[in-house]
Amino acid sequence: MGQNNRPIGVFDSGVGGLTVFKELSRALPAEHLIYLGDTARVPYGNKSPQSVVRFSTENLLFLQKKKVKCVVLACNTATSLALEYLQSTFCLPLAGVIDPAVEKAVSVSVKGRIGVIGTRSTIASKVYERKIFKKNKKIKVISRACPLFVPFVEEGLLKGEVLESVVKMYLADLKGRIDTLILGCTHYPLLKKVIASCLKGVYLIDSAREVAGVTRSFLTEQGLLCKAGKGKREFYVTDEPGSFSRTARLFLGNNIKNPKLVNV
Amino acid sequence: MGQNNRPIGVFDSGVGGLTVFKELSRALPAEHLIYLGDTARVPYGNKSPQSVVRFSTENLLFLQKKKVKCVVLACNTATSLALEYLQSTFCLPLAGVIDPAVEKAVSVSVKGRIGVIGTRSTIASKVYERKIFKKNKKIKVISRACPLFVPFVEEGLLKGEVLESVVKMYLADLKGRIDTLILGCTHYPLLKKVIASCLKGVYLIDSAREVAGVTRSFLTEQGLLCKAGKGKREFYVTDEPGSFSRTARLFLGNNIKNPKLVNV
Repeated sequence: MGQNNRPIGVFDSGVGGLTVFKELSRALPAEHLIYLGDTARVPYGNKSPQSVVRFSTENLLFLQKKKVKCVVLACNTATSLALEYLQSTFCLPLAGVIDPAVEKAVSVSVKGRIGVIGTRSTIASKVYERKIFKKNKKIKVISRACPLFVPFVEEGLLKGEVLESVVKMYLADLKGRIDTLILGCTHYPLLKKVIASCLKGVYLIDSAREVAGVTRSFLTEQGLLCKAGKGKREFYVTDEPGSFSRTARLFLGNNIKNPKLVNV
Repeated sequence: MGQNNRPIGVFDSGVGGLTVFKELSRALPAEHLIYLGDTARVPYGNKSPQSVVRFSTENLLFLQKKKVKCVVLACNTATSLALEYLQSTFCLPLAGVIDPAVEKAVSVSVKGRIGVIGTRSTIASKVYERKIFKKNKKIKVISRACPLFVPFVEEGLLKGEVLESVVKMYLADLKGRIDTLILGCTHYPLLKKVIASCLKGVYLIDSAREVAGVTRSFLTEQGLLCKAGKGKREFYVTDEPGSFSRTARLFLGNNIKNPKLVNV
């Protein structure tokens, strides 16, 4: 198989990365995409850096065996805690969800006040602050862990009073203090409406579309873009596929055909 | 080491089983207790039966190497999905959290209307219904999965309006329809106050105390009880111990000394 016909790997702790997968699928219709959801060990957001690095390494080894030409880490926690290590270890182009979101946030923020929300582990890593300051030291960043958002999304609770009260608990005091908010977890775009109505007028940044753009540019520059035909889509999970398939519908709007159970 | 001086093993997906550990510790002060929390793969409640059986087997193999004289499965999901299999496979006395709670519920229910709350996997297994019907076919059982309770407890959110609205969402319609409620998850005793105020007059059953009693009786009958001295307490976890230690304080009211990181 030629270099450009090789698949693109995508991994996440579970279903969250499907927001990224959806945008990749749209931006790169001819590419063969392989998605791996580590559903046996989900969530990553409250696990230690050491465990997230180990899980991510195992996921990447699995995708490498599939002869992927590059891999997208469709998980903010894995990107925060493991991307740098994986880049220094694997001889494979890797993209994370953080740089593209930071790039966008810095370019759209008018008042230089950016909020970042994510899992406990992502926020504790302070990777967003570091990357934003590297671009512009004058920007003020407010970070906030929102650990209950992932369980709400995984339960399909995407609207209603209970969710609104949780969103308010985490975010109400950011009102008036930020002009831009990075949704620093691939699950959060599904809560966009409720977050937007709590933080009216704040520009919300969803990294999925940005990552898809960056991946397309990279493949084009490297001469690795696959242009012809309709690419295959494959799904692998580490726990039984039943509940993954059900929740995936919330993300993709359609059913996933036969996700396969694997051990990584 | 003599038979009766060997340790008692206890395992759970994470911190929830500490409610059981606490009661065991109180009922069996002279025993050497070894607790294993599978924090790298927590939670179990939304994982498949196949994965929960695999995780539980690995946990039990770890404890078996510690020469335990018996093991308590301090996790309702593991008890629902794996106890029967483990009992048929391992030559080691095993106790789960379900039988003692069922025994108690059937004995205290006045009107024969019992509610059961638990994780998705526990409720889907229908093990409580089966066991209650076996005792008394006339009892009416209403089961309800409450998948957001575990994340709330793990976040230390044990009171307040947001929690109250979640409890109401799951349980308000049980009012007047049950006289007894089994807290079918070892995390739930920490939400007892809020649940009780939502379901006034309903008898709440927390399996931890019941299991401790059953374990004590078993050891006494078998001549395995350790009577003298103050027993050692050891803690093992599969993810870095930091957040386990923090959350454990909510359960035990004091700090855990040096939980050790292990691979199972």
